Amino acid sequence: MTIRTAIVGYGNLGRGVETNIKRQPDMELVGIFSRRSELDTDTPVFPVADIDSYADQIDVLYLCLGSATDIPEQATALAAKFSTVDTYDNHKKVPAHYEAMDEAAFQGDNVAVISTGWDPGLFSINRTLASSIFPQSQQNSFWGKGVSQGHSDALRRIDGVRKAVQYTIPREDAIESAREGRGAKVTSHNAHLRQCWVVADEADQERIENEIRTMPDYFVGYEVEVHFIAEDEFVRDHGGVPHGGHVITSGELGGTHNTIEFTLALESNPDFTAAVQVAYGRAAYRLKEAGQAGAFSVLEIPPYLLAPESLEELLARDI
Amino acid sequence: MTIRTAIVGYGNLGRGVETNIKRQPDMELVGIFSRRSELDTDTPVFPVADIDSYADQIDVLYLCLGSATDIPEQATALAAKFSTVDTYDNHKKVPAHYEAMDEAAFQGDNVAVISTGWDPGLFSINRTLASSIFPQSQQNSFWGKGVSQGHSDALRRIDGVRKAVQYTIPREDAIESAREGRGAKVTSHNAHLRQCWVVADEADQERIENEIRTMPDYFVGYEVEVHFIAEDEFVRDHGGVPHGGHVITSGELGGTHNTIEFTLALESNPDFTAAVQVAYGRAAYRLKEAGQAGAFSVLEIPPYLLAPESLEELLARDI
Repeated sequence: MTIRTAIVGYGNLGRGVETNIKRQPDMELVGIFSRRSELDTDTPVFPVADIDSYADQIDVLYLCLGSATDIPEQATALAAKFSTVDTYDNHKKVPAHYEAMDEAAFQGDNVAVISTGWDPGLFSINRTLASSIFPQSQQNSFWGKGVSQGHSDALRRIDGVRKAVQYTIPREDAIESAREGRGAKVTSHNAHLRQCWVVADEADQERIENEIRTMPDYFVGYEVEVHFIAEDEFVRDHGGVPHGGHVITSGELGGTHNTIEFTLALESNPDFTAAVQVAYGRAAYRLKEAGQAGAFSVLEIPPYLLAPESLEELLARDI
Repeated sequence: MTIRTAIVGYGNLGRGVETNIKRQPDMELVGIFSRRSELDTDTPVFPVADIDSYADQIDVLYLCLGSATDIPEQATALAAKFSTVDTYDNHKKVPAHYEAMDEAAFQGDNVAVISTGWDPGLFSINRTLASSIFPQSQQNSFWGKGVSQGHSDALRRIDGVRKAVQYTIPREDAIESAREGRGAKVTSHNAHLRQCWVVADEADQERIENEIRTMPDYFVGYEVEVHFIAEDEFVRDHGGVPHGGHVITSGELGGTHNTIEFTLALESNPDFTAAVQVAYGRAAYRLKEAGQAGAFSVLEIPPYLLAPESLEELLARDI
């Protein structure tokens, strides 16, 4: 049995999903749907305008679309025709997205798995599981070391900045506080260091550093490091998109202190997000095969549905 | 709506479950079933011989029984009458336990959640989830720092040992290897340090240390530390039952290295195991209410079923 999959959207995420599907033992990639007719890939490319006519040939459609406008504009129409998996990551709007996808998928008798990836996604699962274990818990999420796209863009808008990247780095003392149960005092500001790597002419550097350190919302109130480096060093060392972080939950049980920690250390944020999305495609397929319909968050999906192995194999291997 | 719970078995685990249930917002504790008529508790105590007559008054029965003989001898009869949660931890026999509990629970129209706790339990969930994310992965489990009951017992059997405890401690270099994707070379022997704290007369210490270091299966082939200490120091510092460990999974995605790590640092192994067991009682109750029957491993249970909060609250808070 092979799961027939397809991709809509071909940015970093879509390319990661494409590469990943080709490594799966139980999936085939029917094609990529794009507004562009020419993509640099060996996979068949179809116009996204024709997508509805492929409904009978595709079991799971991976929505590799942006959360800002593409998902809100396109996802429900796709969920009415296909079982889908998305990585919608606007945390505050997840309940509204869930509701919209639930209605669309239910009417189309499809399954829509929403907000996969790692945050939301694996971090969400860990937040729910860990806080359920303790009658009262202290929970902190930390992000990084990772590239913040928004902060990197802010650096690049400064006059004279030729190249720049900003890494968000959780402070070790804040992580230690969370592990020891003193995380209530940890705030976004005191938990994260903002590390900037900038290419600029020497004459501009003092002014640029001052503009960075006084930029409201983005840098004021944070511990900030500014490093000026040569362009070749920047190209060599700062081309990746690492990310990751920690969910740390602790609680008191019978007078003892107990800590649950989930950590991701990712060299490629988009490739890892794609890998999680691909695995949830297996769950979407199996839920639909089992007669389910509607939206499913990662909190509602039994872990074994992600694995290519059978439940019997997992019971013998992982338990 | 209150979940009516009861406990069978009143050792360290049963006491931990009792304390924990009393802190839950949606559970009441009907009583403890024991072979002993007098227990040091304010909770009502009933003879385990009469347990079947309480079937109508109890939604979830926590089996706080040993895995060696109690669970194999008693669990199926209890699952035929009650929805149950156990912490059966004989990894190799989990598939057989699953099958036996599935048949018994199904015939009684009950739900039996098996092998909760942390290993098996939370570690199992993480092993399945993490290995599902990578097309190919390297996965290592580490245990400790924690008290090994079997090794501590082995120390106490040595002539002249008055008090002793053995901590299993994962080696930092082995953990680092796993994080870096070189975990295939990590074995149980080279991954764990065995640290012994012993109270004994000075005249016996050289012989005792020699007996420890040459004890086959338990200590030969491991890095071993032996510390002789005074009795008052032992009583003051070594009365706890800490445990924990790591599940580390890494894989290559698009030429990048990515690591998923789940860590537990527990001051009380039995109280934490009890806390996980109690949370799965909520899942057992909800599955039964939803018309399900039979055995469920932790791999089959959607995470949100463990939380006292509703799915809507979790979608707004944890995602």
